[in-house]
Amino acid sequence: AMDGAPPASPAGLSAYVAVSQLLGLTLLATTGAWLGRYRGGVAWHSPLQFNVHPLCMVLGMVFLQGDALLVYRVFRHEAKRSTKALHALLHGLALVIALVGIVAVFESHHTKGIPDMYSLHSWCGMAAFVLYLLQWLLGCGFFLLPGASFSLRGWYKPQHVFFGISIFTLSIAACLLGITEMLLFNIRDSYSLFVPEGVLANTLGVLLVAFGLVVGYVLTRDDWKRPPLAEELALSMDFKTLTEGESPGG
Amino acid sequence: AMDGAPPASPAGLSAYVAVSQLLGLTLLATTGAWLGRYRGGVAWHSPLQFNVHPLCMVLGMVFLQGDALLVYRVFRHEAKRSTKALHALLHGLALVIALVGIVAVFESHHTKGIPDMYSLHSWCGMAAFVLYLLQWLLGCGFFLLPGASFSLRGWYKPQHVFFGISIFTLSIAACLLGITEMLLFNIRDSYSLFVPEGVLANTLGVLLVAFGLVVGYVLTRDDWKRPPLAEELALSMDFKTLTEGESPGG
Repeated sequence: AMDGAPPASPAGLSAYVAVSQLLGLTLLATTGAWLGRYRGGVAWHSPLQFNVHPLCMVLGMVFLQGDALLVYRVFRHEAKRSTKALHALLHGLALVIALVGIVAVFESHHTKGIPDMYSLHSWCGMAAFVLYLLQWLLGCGFFLLPGASFSLRGWYKPQHVFFGISIFTLSIAACLLGITEMLLFNIRDSYSLFVPEGVLANTLGVLLVAFGLVVGYVLTRDDWKRPPLAEELALSMDFKTLTEGESPGG
Repeated sequence: AMDGAPPASPAGLSAYVAVSQLLGLTLLATTGAWLGRYRGGVAWHSPLQFNVHPLCMVLGMVFLQGDALLVYRVFRHEAKRSTKALHALLHGLALVIALVGIVAVFESHHTKGIPDMYSLHSWCGMAAFVLYLLQWLLGCGFFLLPGASFSLRGWYKPQHVFFGISIFTLSIAACLLGITEMLLFNIRDSYSLFVPEGVLANTLGVLLVAFGLVVGYVLTRDDWKRPPLAEELALSMDFKTLTEGESPGG
């Protein structure tokens, strides 16, 4: 409440987190319904292998990535060590699932003789995945391994948060591009006639945006942030002294 | 520097703002090059009227909207009154230009007998525009008209900032969807052969994402925020007292 925001409201936070999970499950169900009802379902080593791609990307790069970001808000009064481990674990799981989704589309392209990486969707999606992997490695290096000093962690943390939210946003944008590509490849002319598949897939797009908005709101609201630990407050004062050159000695 | 961030670095801020403007001008030039070289140019009341749409949307909903957001960082030591007026004015200009772009595509669809508002691009783009207009009206109502109390403004401000950045992000996502639609409608099969038009339009998409990232970074970096005015600090203490119920009387 330092900056004039109202004091922490755990009831409000819980409501927003509940809405985010409802949206997350709805968007998984909508993806499943689209693929199952209109695209023949999902299978590996078959003409349906492509469909593994959208399913894995929505599950890994959106739902699990989003939930991994929320961990610090949901468990903001738990031990920081275990919250951090859960955050890293969920992101790791998301990365593995996303990798399966990427292998699915490359293999599917290879079987059908379709070139890779030519579309804006593939450029944005691959950028999101590579940056996400890099962010995860850097996050483990700075925050889980014992090597990094407190002040180095303090410098890296805001960058980690900014790029975390940016990569999550880029992942959602890549999904929207993928939806548009799939619709224009598969239902092309009937898309403009408001056929049910087009409306369903558009709705999935709207749900993805809504999930991103709710997660983003929870993450950026000042009074829902994790209260800093005593040593972090101490560090911030050390850091200020250091950078302002007021420290004696050196 | 209250939160341990290094002290304000105007040189760093200037460098980021310069990069954002370079990116902004490059993305306008890239849009112009795409439309001029590969899409026959831009004209009203002609088969080229559609091309007014991407040009206006990139100029209004991305470049000008982004610059209007940056105004509070670039002029963070100027009088708040004039900064606020410039912020509102740039957003107003962006809205007018975006409206021209929307009229262009509706008229073009009408002439060619193409249905409106069936695609995910149109849903996201129209949502971005309507929310942007609403945000502008609410912003004028809360911050420019004299009616709203200090505490009401204090409550609304974080919402205004969150939705401002969200609408800007959604606008960029809508542009990426529009690029994908245009490429799949116009060059369809040769897109996968990496023809120059496809690569140029993909590059425009990457530039849009880069512009969004740089603007987002400048806006959210703690130590580049506008220092609060004396009355805002006083208000924040009043507000805290009020909401914590420690105020006598009432």
